[in-house]
Amino acid sequence: MKTDPDSHKRMTQRHKEGFEKKKAAAQLEKGLLIVNTGTGKGKSSAAFGMGMRILGHGMKLGVVQFIKGALYSAERDFLGSHANCDFHVVGAGYTWDTQDREADMRTAARGWAEALRMINDPSYDMVILDELNIVLKYQYLDLEEVLRVFAGRREMLHIVVTGRHAPEALIEQADLVSEMRPVKHPYKEQGVKAQKGVEF
Amino acid sequence: MKTDPDSHKRMTQRHKEGFEKKKAAAQLEKGLLIVNTGTGKGKSSAAFGMGMRILGHGMKLGVVQFIKGALYSAERDFLGSHANCDFHVVGAGYTWDTQDREADMRTAARGWAEALRMINDPSYDMVILDELNIVLKYQYLDLEEVLRVFAGRREMLHIVVTGRHAPEALIEQADLVSEMRPVKHPYKEQGVKAQKGVEF
Repeated sequence: MKTDPDSHKRMTQRHKEGFEKKKAAAQLEKGLLIVNTGTGKGKSSAAFGMGMRILGHGMKLGVVQFIKGALYSAERDFLGSHANCDFHVVGAGYTWDTQDREADMRTAARGWAEALRMINDPSYDMVILDELNIVLKYQYLDLEEVLRVFAGRREMLHIVVTGRHAPEALIEQADLVSEMRPVKHPYKEQGVKAQKGVEF
Repeated sequence: MKTDPDSHKRMTQRHKEGFEKKKAAAQLEKGLLIVNTGTGKGKSSAAFGMGMRILGHGMKLGVVQFIKGALYSAERDFLGSHANCDFHVVGAGYTWDTQDREADMRTAARGWAEALRMINDPSYDMVILDELNIVLKYQYLDLEEVLRVFAGRREMLHIVVTGRHAPEALIEQADLVSEMRPVKHPYKEQGVKAQKGVEF
């Protein structure tokens, strides 16, 4: 394949200029409210990736995992064993396994108490609330209270919320929102079963 | 807030049944070709999350990072220090910093040689080709050769490809494709600058 080397140079130069311009225009430093939602894969992994970066910078990370599953256990082990990471798992399996709304609400409240403790403790730089969106969707917690606590957080604290079906009001309030969208999935389209390492 | 506990029970029961049915229908076990693309955040983190799960199962992981950036260095440190992980970083910063097409093609070829070695070595269970999509988009590698190698891989080998702008033909061939879509980004909309731990 032949390509004009000058055209490549112009293209890469344009990319670089666009990126530098955007970065230069962005001056404000503040803690971000980040939401990873959508029905695709990678919401929690992307959050845990940010968590690892926080730890890599010597900063302190808190994680509350609102729904415990077989999923992400390797990432949990990696993060949870780090001295600067406070990792709390609440709940006893997926809520649709327990089918007891009162019990699920108590479980969610325990998770929220841990979240409040971390959010109000100035030693934390980032708090990840894994699968909080599901808990909010089932209305196990009061959305208004959650949003009020997020809005009143310390200026430099990052909060990361994951889970499908993020409430509209949370998306409104968030600084950074990503949607993970499944384009093709082997369960549905090819009869391929859940694979070790990929799905669990 | 009041909710009918029976309606909750029915809803959770339906969720559970739908999930179990889909899982039961999926019987085939095989190595998957997985693509994480789109312009949103989390493509590489989601891939690295799968990599950690592979390591958590005592399986062997290979990673070729085709474009080295300040990004993901914490995840790289976490994975790279694991005995069962072979982590190769190729390239010297973003290609649009070098602006030398011939040099970039040689760099990509070195990365591809590492990828081929891992793909052909039966001790690897998963190979992550981080940012390969960008390299393919710039046509630094021959797409047809890459797809031929993927199609001819060992039956149980998982290959994970990340990067924006995945080629259509790769999406066609892939088993599992996720698109990370930015819904809201603080650079563009609020003048917020790149934050330690979130962006790098």
